[in-house]
Amino acid sequence: MTVTITTRERLIDAATELLHEYPYHAVGVQTLCEHAGVRKGSFYHYFGSKEELTIAAMDLAWQAFTDEVGPILAGPESPAEKMRRIVAACLSSSRVHSRTGEVMIGCPFARLAASISEDEPRLRLRLAEIFEEWADLLTTASGDAAVAWSTLAEIQGRLLLTASTGRNLS
Amino acid sequence: MTVTITTRERLIDAATELLHEYPYHAVGVQTLCEHAGVRKGSFYHYFGSKEELTIAAMDLAWQAFTDEVGPILAGPESPAEKMRRIVAACLSSSRVHSRTGEVMIGCPFARLAASISEDEPRLRLRLAEIFEEWADLLTTASGDAAVAWSTLAEIQGRLLLTASTGRNLS
Repeated sequence: MTVTITTRERLIDAATELLHEYPYHAVGVQTLCEHAGVRKGSFYHYFGSKEELTIAAMDLAWQAFTDEVGPILAGPESPAEKMRRIVAACLSSSRVHSRTGEVMIGCPFARLAASISEDEPRLRLRLAEIFEEWADLLTTASGDAAVAWSTLAEIQGRLLLTASTGRNLS
Repeated sequence: MTVTITTRERLIDAATELLHEYPYHAVGVQTLCEHAGVRKGSFYHYFGSKEELTIAAMDLAWQAFTDEVGPILAGPESPAEKMRRIVAACLSSSRVHSRTGEVMIGCPFARLAASISEDEPRLRLRLAEIFEEWADLLTTASGDAAVAWSTLAEIQGRLLLTASTGRNLS
């Protein structure tokens, strides 16, 4: 079977990769097109704005994450063991192979939330929804909403501190 | 006594206020000068770059925070009570009065860490040092480095999620 990657998919892949590693304002449409191997003139045929492409990339990343943890949620393990496995999945998914070796670069959703401004209201709203869905998912695993938000806070904090200080806190 | 605020101090105040609320790339030298009421031509007389001004502003904010928690560290309370008070100080310092009312806008150090790029290596290094000093301070309070990093992670995560979702997690 031949898998054809469309121009739209190449742009989404470029956004996923670049916005995981760099802050939102440091990645322009020109850079995204060069990374995707797409002519800049084609960009607006597929997406109305960088914000729209970013939302598509975040939707795909969030879908991939929920696909990964779905089997854990549906499994027979105890709430504590489910939480342990989901936290491990959250922390390991933020470890990537860069040109200089394996590095921890934080959570792409959190980096975006911290690096966007008032000019990206739809993206801000989508990120808030993703954090809410993430807490819902942890509430399903643990059976306790307060534990879920506290665990999500610790995951986000560990990713931020690991990425900022280079310490291994995962 | 007449207190004279120097041009340098006005620029630092402007950076402190604007970088608490907006991501690094959304705040330019022009905007900083306008907010400070300083002519743009004067800026480079005081600071070599926006990065240099930002480091000065972060140094001052960090000094204010350590001045605030110093008496807690030196007090007679138990480690658990000292930690409780320091965490409360961390969470409340990120609540500010904006034009639209009281809002939670996250930790300025964390927002900067997430929103700067490879182009600000000295600022990145200074932020890493601040997080290390913060963990040292919590280690002094709690007597346990692992508890200190875990607590700092939860503080950072709560501030991020509160700012992103509008929920009150403090």
